Amino acid sequence: MTNRVYNFSAGPAMLPTPVMQKIQDEFLDYQGLGASIVEVSHRLPIFREILDSTESLFRELTNLPKNYRVLFMHGGAQMQFSAVPLNLMYRKKHKGSYFITGRWGILAEKEAQRYGSTEVLMDTKEYDYRQIPEFDISKLDQESSYAHLTTNNTLYGTRWHSFPDTGSVPLAADATSDILSREMDYSQFGVVYAGFQKNLGTSGTAIVIVRDDLLGNALPETPKLLDYAIFDEHHSIPNTINVFAVYVMRLMLEWVKEQGGVQEMENLAEKKSALLYDVLDRSDFYKAVAHPKHRSTMNVTFHFPQEELLQKFLTESDNEGLFGLMGHAMVGGARASIYNAMPLEGVAELALFMQEFERKNG
Amino acid sequence: MTNRVYNFSAGPAMLPTPVMQKIQDEFLDYQGLGASIVEVSHRLPIFREILDSTESLFRELTNLPKNYRVLFMHGGAQMQFSAVPLNLMYRKKHKGSYFITGRWGILAEKEAQRYGSTEVLMDTKEYDYRQIPEFDISKLDQESSYAHLTTNNTLYGTRWHSFPDTGSVPLAADATSDILSREMDYSQFGVVYAGFQKNLGTSGTAIVIVRDDLLGNALPETPKLLDYAIFDEHHSIPNTINVFAVYVMRLMLEWVKEQGGVQEMENLAEKKSALLYDVLDRSDFYKAVAHPKHRSTMNVTFHFPQEELLQKFLTESDNEGLFGLMGHAMVGGARASIYNAMPLEGVAELALFMQEFERKNG
Repeated sequence: MTNRVYNFSAGPAMLPTPVMQKIQDEFLDYQGLGASIVEVSHRLPIFREILDSTESLFRELTNLPKNYRVLFMHGGAQMQFSAVPLNLMYRKKHKGSYFITGRWGILAEKEAQRYGSTEVLMDTKEYDYRQIPEFDISKLDQESSYAHLTTNNTLYGTRWHSFPDTGSVPLAADATSDILSREMDYSQFGVVYAGFQKNLGTSGTAIVIVRDDLLGNALPETPKLLDYAIFDEHHSIPNTINVFAVYVMRLMLEWVKEQGGVQEMENLAEKKSALLYDVLDRSDFYKAVAHPKHRSTMNVTFHFPQEELLQKFLTESDNEGLFGLMGHAMVGGARASIYNAMPLEGVAELALFMQEFERKNG
Repeated sequence: MTNRVYNFSAGPAMLPTPVMQKIQDEFLDYQGLGASIVEVSHRLPIFREILDSTESLFRELTNLPKNYRVLFMHGGAQMQFSAVPLNLMYRKKHKGSYFITGRWGILAEKEAQRYGSTEVLMDTKEYDYRQIPEFDISKLDQESSYAHLTTNNTLYGTRWHSFPDTGSVPLAADATSDILSREMDYSQFGVVYAGFQKNLGTSGTAIVIVRDDLLGNALPETPKLLDYAIFDEHHSIPNTINVFAVYVMRLMLEWVKEQGGVQEMENLAEKKSALLYDVLDRSDFYKAVAHPKHRSTMNVTFHFPQEELLQKFLTESDNEGLFGLMGHAMVGGARASIYNAMPLEGVAELALFMQEFERKNG
């Protein structure tokens, strides 16, 4: 497809062209069925096979321990801002402890206040969310129901390089923007969840990975379709699932596997982000948003010496087939989101473009 | 597409082939963007235009009164089983009154029990859900927060031909399986909702049409993404929307308009269902499930003289390119779901097949 741009959108984000072509090819007739996969019952064996293999591929790619369940739930990561407290606040003090390192943490903590008390363990606002300072984990109340963090902050382009040991307090993580881009030891977590629309496919649905001992104690006010135990019991189809999203996710997982798995995605992410950080570090023109010690490998964020240059940068990059580089409104500047599907060549093109833009405007 | 079957699936259901082809054609490159519509931010003008025109087309097709809001929410109709009580139970007695005419009504009433008291106005179990008897509306407690019904019962193939006048009690309706297949006066309702996966496109999302005076009083335990006022305030994008589903819905609405609108869909539904009911009525072989007075025009359900004949019917019809005719497990027998996308020719083929099957096996 010669007319496909390099798409740096933060999410919904670009998908690998081979995945997109496969969806297109079989869109009217899935494997000789005479109908699309989006046109048949989610309870038919032909879809059940997709659902089962999506789960088993995810388990394989992540080396997921056996005592974790994999659920596919409606509404994306933000619905989990409600689901985490609704499902976990039964424990001990009905209290959620939050590491706030950006916008999604703020919203998650706010939502939890509906269902119990909350505690802010860390709020990196004082650092303009540019870094994630050391935290003395002995300050975590071991009577908390859970502790929550955001693994990667899309707006600011920071991430947790390693995760705090929360002891007996289950750690819940929003991994929407870096799932499958780095090797993770899931046994460190009670719950990990991620919206599909970055590394897992299309929007509207989330994957929820939950340790099995945490199931079955949802608060009485939990809507049926936010209850982890209900999704576990019904193998993610207590009602009609987002068939298209699960189908696309399977193709994404197959593609990751073909590329060499999560380790290869991590290597590639390191290489891609290094290309851009190298441009930023050697420049007196661009100002990187994230502190070098806490840089994301998924979202690279930077400002210009004058704000007026942003629009020029966006227009000219767009003309070069480098699309979607506008930063989030709350941060300003530019942002290159370079999820798994972004090829190295696309990032190399952007790095060259940035250097050229600096030469012309510096 | 010569290899497309006539697909009688109950939902997810067949979509019109021209709609499917359009999705396929522009899947890798939406209107020269160089990216798919599923790969770009839901906040870009290019998607906002889709969202806006989907709403305005829906308003046009349904003659929706101005004091109703149109929301697109996560999770399909079953998420609304929770959302309706969470958003409406603030009124008066914190009580939901339910007309139960099939499985979806049972589940809706059960879910409402979490949030307040409920009252069953009618339960057609005594008729095996085959009919919807007259109801003396004076029995409705005018202090109820709302009254709820299911417009069309997919399992049994019954429907409300007209709707009860509930006075000052807002009527909430699950119209998942017959929305846009019949002309409806929305001013009779407080809330109408429908999952997309029958007459509106693909699964995972619901449309919610709500009278504006009912907004803004959700119960305190309402998750943010189940609150009608939040969706209204954020024009259905408080978080990442199911971009693909909305995009497909717009194509579905454009297609309905091209066909002549809802009135033409209703005429066609009458014709299609009459073809099948005529076969049933003239037969001593098939036993229709629904009482003739309460027959659905969307789902035609019937049994065989011996249960063994069902499998034979399914195998032989499938061989003839008539797909998805198995009835729901709770009802047994066969079911032909003939939503808007099913062409008259497909139903005519099925009617002929049924007659032939009766001749051979009667």
